[in-house]
Amino acid sequence: MDKIRVSLLGSTGMVGQKMVKILSSHPFIELVKVSASPSKVGKKYQDSVKWIEQGEIPDRVRDMRMISTEPDDHKDVDVVLSALPNELAEGVELKLVKEGITVVSNASPFRMDPDVPLINPEINWEHLELLKYQRERKGWKGFMVKNPNCTASIMTMPLKPVFGLVSASRTFITTLQAVSGAGYSGLPFMAIENNVIPYIKGEEDKIPKEINKMLGKIEEGKIKNANNVIHVTSTRVPVKVGHMGVINMELKDEIDVNLVKKSIEEFKSLPQLKNLPTAPPRPIILRDEEDRPQPARDLNEGMATSVGRVKIEDGILRFVVLGDNLVRGAAGITVLTLEVMKELDYI
Amino acid sequence: MDKIRVSLLGSTGMVGQKMVKILSSHPFIELVKVSASPSKVGKKYQDSVKWIEQGEIPDRVRDMRMISTEPDDHKDVDVVLSALPNELAEGVELKLVKEGITVVSNASPFRMDPDVPLINPEINWEHLELLKYQRERKGWKGFMVKNPNCTASIMTMPLKPVFGLVSASRTFITTLQAVSGAGYSGLPFMAIENNVIPYIKGEEDKIPKEINKMLGKIEEGKIKNANNVIHVTSTRVPVKVGHMGVINMELKDEIDVNLVKKSIEEFKSLPQLKNLPTAPPRPIILRDEEDRPQPARDLNEGMATSVGRVKIEDGILRFVVLGDNLVRGAAGITVLTLEVMKELDYI
Amino acid sequence: MDKIRVSLLGSTGMVGQKMVKILSSHPFIELVKVSASPSKVGKKYQDSVKWIEQGEIPDRVRDMRMISTEPDDHKDVDVVLSALPNELAEGVELKLVKEGITVVSNASPFRMDPDVPLINPEINWEHLELLKYQRERKGWKGFMVKNPNCTASIMTMPLKPVFGLVSASRTFITTLQAVSGAGYSGLPFMAIENNVIPYIKGEEDKIPKEINKMLGKIEEGKIKNANNVIHVTSTRVPVKVGHMGVINMELKDEIDVNLVKKSIEEFKSLPQLKNLPTAPPRPIILRDEEDRPQPARDLNEGMATSVGRVKIEDGILRFVVLGDNLVRGAAGITVLTLEVMKELDYI
Amino acid sequence: MDKIRVSLLGSTGMVGQKMVKILSSHPFIELVKVSASPSKVGKKYQDSVKWIEQGEIPDRVRDMRMISTEPDDHKDVDVVLSALPNELAEGVELKLVKEGITVVSNASPFRMDPDVPLINPEINWEHLELLKYQRERKGWKGFMVKNPNCTASIMTMPLKPVFGLVSASRTFITTLQAVSGAGYSGLPFMAIENNVIPYIKGEEDKIPKEINKMLGKIEEGKIKNANNVIHVTSTRVPVKVGHMGVINMELKDEIDVNLVKKSIEEFKSLPQLKNLPTAPPRPIILRDEEDRPQPARDLNEGMATSVGRVKIEDGILRFVVLGDNLVRGAAGITVLTLEVMKELDYI
Repeated sequence: MDKIRVSLLGSTGMVGQKMVKILSSHPFIELVKVSASPSKVGKKYQDSVKWIEQGEIPDRVRDMRMISTEPDDHKDVDVVLSALPNELAEGVELKLVKEGITVVSNASPFRMDPDVPLINPEINWEHLELLKYQRERKGWKGFMVKNPNCTASIMTMPLKPVFGLVSASRTFITTLQAVSGAGYSGLPFMAIENNVIPYIKGEEDKIPKEINKMLGKIEEGKIKNANNVIHVTSTRVPVKVGHMGVINMELKDEIDVNLVKKSIEEFKSLPQLKNLPTAPPRPIILRDEEDRPQPARDLNEGMATSVGRVKIEDGILRFVVLGDNLVRGAAGITVLTLEVMKELDYI
Repeated sequence: MDKIRVSLLGSTGMVGQKMVKILSSHPFIELVKVSASPSKVGKKYQDSVKWIEQGEIPDRVRDMRMISTEPDDHKDVDVVLSALPNELAEGVELKLVKEGITVVSNASPFRMDPDVPLINPEINWEHLELLKYQRERKGWKGFMVKNPNCTASIMTMPLKPVFGLVSASRTFITTLQAVSGAGYSGLPFMAIENNVIPYIKGEEDKIPKEINKMLGKIEEGKIKNANNVIHVTSTRVPVKVGHMGVINMELKDEIDVNLVKKSIEEFKSLPQLKNLPTAPPRPIILRDEEDRPQPARDLNEGMATSVGRVKIEDGILRFVVLGDNLVRGAAGITVLTLEVMKELDYI
Repeated sequence: MDKIRVSLLGSTGMVGQKMVKILSSHPFIELVKVSASPSKVGKKYQDSVKWIEQGEIPDRVRDMRMISTEPDDHKDVDVVLSALPNELAEGVELKLVKEGITVVSNASPFRMDPDVPLINPEINWEHLELLKYQRERKGWKGFMVKNPNCTASIMTMPLKPVFGLVSASRTFITTLQAVSGAGYSGLPFMAIENNVIPYIKGEEDKIPKEINKMLGKIEEGKIKNANNVIHVTSTRVPVKVGHMGVINMELKDEIDVNLVKKSIEEFKSLPQLKNLPTAPPRPIILRDEEDRPQPARDLNEGMATSVGRVKIEDGILRFVVLGDNLVRGAAGITVLTLEVMKELDYI
Repeated sequence: MDKIRVSLLGSTGMVGQKMVKILSSHPFIELVKVSASPSKVGKKYQDSVKWIEQGEIPDRVRDMRMISTEPDDHKDVDVVLSALPNELAEGVELKLVKEGITVVSNASPFRMDPDVPLINPEINWEHLELLKYQRERKGWKGFMVKNPNCTASIMTMPLKPVFGLVSASRTFITTLQAVSGAGYSGLPFMAIENNVIPYIKGEEDKIPKEINKMLGKIEEGKIKNANNVIHVTSTRVPVKVGHMGVINMELKDEIDVNLVKKSIEEFKSLPQLKNLPTAPPRPIILRDEEDRPQPARDLNEGMATSVGRVKIEDGILRFVVLGDNLVRGAAGITVLTLEVMKELDYI
């Protein structure tokens, strides 16, 4: 089988390094080019990156020469993956898709664009159908696919099966987000050690919108976003990796909590059915221990989220979700998105 | 003025040490005896305690000989303060009050007893009125006054003025509690470092009940507990001191958020009016910075709580509370309770 | 090939759990029985252990019934591995060896006994020769082999090749030891978070003695301990895993630092030669980056130590060592010791 | 008495904020102007600073308009205090002294200049004598006084009395330095949480030189630096405030450890004699507990260092030092230096 050849933008940041690591042992996606900031063009990857992933820089990538973000440098790959910081992403990615290049991106711009699918594979792989209409509607020559905000990605994992089972008048989410979500240098030790910061810029506004888009349905070639009422308060906690959410849902009807647990635990989707390389066999692991999930125990292999403390009392369904913000939250779902696109012949 | 002479049970734990420190410079309460476990009786305080409060052991207490918890050892003090662990408290405290001794206690047993006032001074000092009936109803010779769970104490500070202003159909509280709330040795470093534990034994059940008792009204010599519907999820975070709560209230009627902020900021009560020594001039400090309150910044002097992120959107009032779990949560309000009792001639 | 059947004492502690994990995928050592405290006898392992190792309890061990520490319960295994706490180890292990059982132990008692080999496999596998004389000298029917203190084990890795190359009049070691070295509940979060404790009970006395025994030579069937002058100051730092040592050696003669680096980097021994399963291909990884080794980056797979900051200036050789205190420091070398014993027909 | 009017460069950084706090309640030094980067000129201090010191910004400073670093802006103060970052300090401070302004600075440039006194008040206040010759030798119109590197400042506190008592052939110092020493944003949480970094750029080279200059003697109007042989390895630990040093000294002669302890504990100097406001009554607090000093317990009020684990064994004197890197290490000694200069009529 031919390998899918990809290049990677933003290859030196935390999410970029995670993608480099995941792709270093991929059966059919081959990372052939790496890019970062203009100042690094021409340098070797190993001299451009402050490598902080576990282990050493994968050999094949070590000596790769960094390329630019210009379309000409990416004409000979099948897909450009992007882990660019938001402020750079919009301009760069737009230029690439206009030039006929397919971009699958983690960055924020265009996520809520009605013509761009916002993919968390198990949740809404079918939204890729938008690609059939995208080029015409947008006037682009290439395709753009987006992956969601890390917290939205993780929270949606159990919300998908749960919202398929119950209706809620309101959903409250309080997040306890890890520091790596802010990037390697995002938060100084002096700011967050022995502390909690009850605010993360931009987060509380994004999360409900992205969740509702992911949970939306395709109708007549357009996504009709779900209209769940979701209230989010985001906090930052002194944990390196692992975003947690405490979720309370005001149910409209009664339901047996065991049905809810079952729907969460048994949730599977196309990636599991097709046994895709980066798909976790069980996307959600249900914990019945009273003090789980925990970041120190339940990040699993990165793609499976964990859910615990499931309870229905007095018409309120409460549960706690945890996921790896760098893998399920970012790098892992970008790679899985590519695998689904190949499976469905979008690549 | 005569000083109030007190003895202290559980004087070597974290809350006990905090009380020793607070009382070391008190204008009219004098700590004259200290007690801990039976094995320490007769030893000097300095040889019994693993002192972890800031500074050195106050001189006056250093050489005090530890006494037992038996009533005979406490007959010559005016009040016995108790920071005993729950499993010991019930038996010891009951024995003392039966023998005619007045006990003001931080420990859990009897908090929800309808004949025992559960005092968070600014919130419900008037519940001390129960003492007029207690001895007769209980058949005790002494008085028992209780202070609430640390988290309940802190959360009730803004809930008092807010519930005086609005009605809510439901209130959701997600707590992020500090490790000191579990006692000095309560949690190993290996368990909580770089981690969040989404469960604290017994907490979620206690908090709504104690809040509703504190917010209750005295009617015909009995407390009619409030009946607010409150849902709590408690988590433990790797912070040493400072319990935070993210509160979402589903309002029954519309209200201007500025009225809510004003009621929180201007909240004052008898302790402030009477300028009691341990009363904070402003019991609640309202922060308008977007990323406050934080444990590293807003513990204040220990008795004032901080509130921030106040917002009303879509019928939901959301705010974040923070308080010092050892002072407003425990030791400080015990001392302030004593000051109020003296002010109202209960001592 | 017949598998080596082993039982494990102290199987529920941190070191015990690490051994359970390592043995769960071992080519020729089979864990067939597990033991812990008397109160657990008869219970399943999964109901006796608070599992904190990564992943789940290995299936084969999950339902094993806990046995006692009595010799009768261990007669049908080839070797008893012990991760017992020190206070229990002496009595239990002595009883076992007297009854003809072979014990390989991590616990402190008997480590410095002249008739008991103290094995850190790459360093002094040849000390196993003592076993030829042990039973006669001790009057035991079984064999006892000891593994060293975690810090001594890690520090000795580079000291072996370095002392083979240079002579030093004095060696100073300042250690920065991880909290897991004290056991799971050894240190409360409140004691060590945001803190350094410049003292670890018993450590500074043990480390020089154990290092000198490991670096000693067999002469006429007895170990002649080395007589290096070593001064140790041990500190505890708020890190979960990974003991670091800053070593300064006062050299007697001049030497080229590159020869020292070469001897460290190229150090290999019998375990590497025989390609034993738990032997790291390179026992010491030399880092040339100026800010390495670090616990967050250089624990490797647990058996290889890392060395960096190698410098000779003004007659002083200085370097920094780091190792995984649970693997190279304890569980891993116990398993590797067994592999060496089998290789040399002691089992 | 006339107050000493001072302006402050680098007033928004950690050290600057600490100085603002210390000066907010000073009996005779008055902070009248504040400065930071060019982009802040004209703004109010409260709008320029990200205040992270405990409590609120002192009222008097809150509304001060930031000035530039140009000499004209500082002509009407008595002394300019500088907490500028190193890269800016040299140019700015030189320009000021050339224009006749007296500068007392924490920044690195000029510390080792033979004509500039490097003052840690209790240690070498008498080096201020250099000021009698400085203007002539340097051709400056104003005076420049420097304060040392934070770690050098703290380590020198016990080294002064100890070197006055014993001779050592070599002294080894391993430091465990707090993160605040790198500035507020100096180290990301991701870099240092649950980690140790065994390297701090520039530190190991500076510390011995600055210690030897501080311990030097004035001979014929020049400082003859001491020539102690000192080897330093610096590590960074995940602690917010408090630099620790483990010191081993190879003694040339025997001495009773109690004499050493006495000399450390009783060490006093001119600042204590003259009862200067910022002088700690006892500059060094000797701890006899086996596990002290600790950052969480022994920062004292910031100016007194703590020493423990004092032992002489086998000709090696070993002790552990701890100090507040922001106060004794920087801001506090700058203020104390000013007090001494006034006492000795240099101002």
